Amino acid sequence: MTLREAGEFGLIRRIQNQYASPTAVPLGIGDDAAAIASSSLNYTLLTTDTLVEHTHFECAFSDYLQLGYKALAVNLSDIAAMGGKPKYFLVSLGLRDSFRTHDIDRLYRGIAKASREAEAIMVGGNTTRSHKQAFIGITLIGEISKKEMVTRGGAKEGDALYVTGSLGDAAAGLSLLKKGLHKRKHAKMIARYQCPQARVLEGRLLGKEKIPSAMIDISDGLGADLNHILERSQVGAELLLDRIPISPALRGYAKECGIDPFAYALSGGEDYELLFSVPQKRIPKLEQLQRSGGIQVTRIGSIIEKRHGLRLRKGDGSLQRIKPGGYDHFKLALRKI
Amino acid sequence: MTLREAGEFGLIRRIQNQYASPTAVPLGIGDDAAAIASSSLNYTLLTTDTLVEHTHFECAFSDYLQLGYKALAVNLSDIAAMGGKPKYFLVSLGLRDSFRTHDIDRLYRGIAKASREAEAIMVGGNTTRSHKQAFIGITLIGEISKKEMVTRGGAKEGDALYVTGSLGDAAAGLSLLKKGLHKRKHAKMIARYQCPQARVLEGRLLGKEKIPSAMIDISDGLGADLNHILERSQVGAELLLDRIPISPALRGYAKECGIDPFAYALSGGEDYELLFSVPQKRIPKLEQLQRSGGIQVTRIGSIIEKRHGLRLRKGDGSLQRIKPGGYDHFKLALRKI
Repeated sequence: MTLREAGEFGLIRRIQNQYASPTAVPLGIGDDAAAIASSSLNYTLLTTDTLVEHTHFECAFSDYLQLGYKALAVNLSDIAAMGGKPKYFLVSLGLRDSFRTHDIDRLYRGIAKASREAEAIMVGGNTTRSHKQAFIGITLIGEISKKEMVTRGGAKEGDALYVTGSLGDAAAGLSLLKKGLHKRKHAKMIARYQCPQARVLEGRLLGKEKIPSAMIDISDGLGADLNHILERSQVGAELLLDRIPISPALRGYAKECGIDPFAYALSGGEDYELLFSVPQKRIPKLEQLQRSGGIQVTRIGSIIEKRHGLRLRKGDGSLQRIKPGGYDHFKLALRKI
Repeated sequence: MTLREAGEFGLIRRIQNQYASPTAVPLGIGDDAAAIASSSLNYTLLTTDTLVEHTHFECAFSDYLQLGYKALAVNLSDIAAMGGKPKYFLVSLGLRDSFRTHDIDRLYRGIAKASREAEAIMVGGNTTRSHKQAFIGITLIGEISKKEMVTRGGAKEGDALYVTGSLGDAAAGLSLLKKGLHKRKHAKMIARYQCPQARVLEGRLLGKEKIPSAMIDISDGLGADLNHILERSQVGAELLLDRIPISPALRGYAKECGIDPFAYALSGGEDYELLFSVPQKRIPKLEQLQRSGGIQVTRIGSIIEKRHGLRLRKGDGSLQRIKPGGYDHFKLALRKI
């Protein structure tokens, strides 16, 4: 079996099954970040994510400053999804010989910009030659009070499903870049692809107020990431299709081109919004936060019994069951766009 | 200026100058590992190192099990060079589509072997496609008592210079692999290239006994790595060429081919031995450890005034000054071999 056949998630499951973390590790392989005990009150959170040229980025579509910014943002987003506070990070660069020091300076300036915003500190790293394909890897260390940590595994039947911000913009931004369209009205979508904003403050606030029962960041698309929560929590979910928040810009772009904006939201990925489940009794607190302007969220569905799997309720009331990986159909739809 | 012109160390210096770590970070960019305060008594050590295909490895020269083992070993070696204890690690894989799951299993088995030996625990990571060039990145978290940490920056004039084990084997092993020579008498050198043993126990012992004033692991060759100590400590050094420990296997191979074994030792790299300076008053303690069999070390020179730079005393008593980067001459000599 090749990697292509096994798929990334298949591979992670294999590793997880074979190298289960000892019980001394509070949270091992298979969440947004790992947690290790650092004191009686806190966990240290560890996460690593790498942007690989031609897989995650093209130098034609992003400036080096944007690449640096994004490389840290995708890691900040993982810590945010645990409710944690980013603290320190290491940078591992694989650079082609043709990179100019000016480019590398801009890359680091982008990393520094994201780190200032999140108050995280660069403490080291390594650089190496990678002549055929560049990469930017970051390992981020975060911190969280034991009582506030949110995993993917706590969703319960009856919980409501929420998402921050809006979905689909980043995927639309990438498709605009591929088409060479950079009109002013498209700028926001392109920016969300090039310089995603990790929801660090939102994640911290949700964790501190102990609102979510489970949480994840949306890097692979709503469908795939919701499925991670369902698997770890052993539950099902019903998504209300027309509640999925779509930005005015994406709505306009979709209308203009006669395409389905929800395909971008469900399968596009790279939005780095937070998806989380909320027990009924904590909804008033969330609504209060929403009203006070602390956080902008949208209710997009509910957690249901596991046997129902993941299903989509459309505007006309009809239900469509989506098999695990079934959002790949949307992905195919996207490729045609 | 391109990366090729600036060089890796030039690049690290640029980054270090521009992004000096805040004083809240006990040890930032520019040592074998970074140190952050974790409790009143201990530091948490952080290091990351990536093996890149065609830069650091060729699948033709190493089995996947060996690659996995080595990927962790090179990180263990960084923690060893601080005197630290390895604790947790994350794995970041960039895989070509043609990798079989069997290969990846073997890769993880190699990582698991090295982790068992060092009692380090895998807590997470990420996998991604990298179609043109694979890579294996590891970030390792270690721990050390504040009193026992050894940096590159403490060497003083008059200190003695020591190295563990023997040098040059790994570089000779790689050259044998390139030549397609795998005779039995070469096996040890090849094994040192394919599966280097990080000197974790030796590093811990030296740290615990507070013997070294400065320490580094030899990944780039004795010349380049000694130079890092000299720069950080603001001192010079005199190496006694014929004291540099060469294994019987390398001695035999060098004789057979009429080449200079010291070129391998000075410039070959990848030996992952520990190089450290020892104040005169602590030498008796080190010799006692050596006699009790706790550690095998060789005295190879002394720390001298900064103005002398790095110089080499040959067997005939003559002195040769080596300018920073001057060991690259040896590297050129190696290429011709």
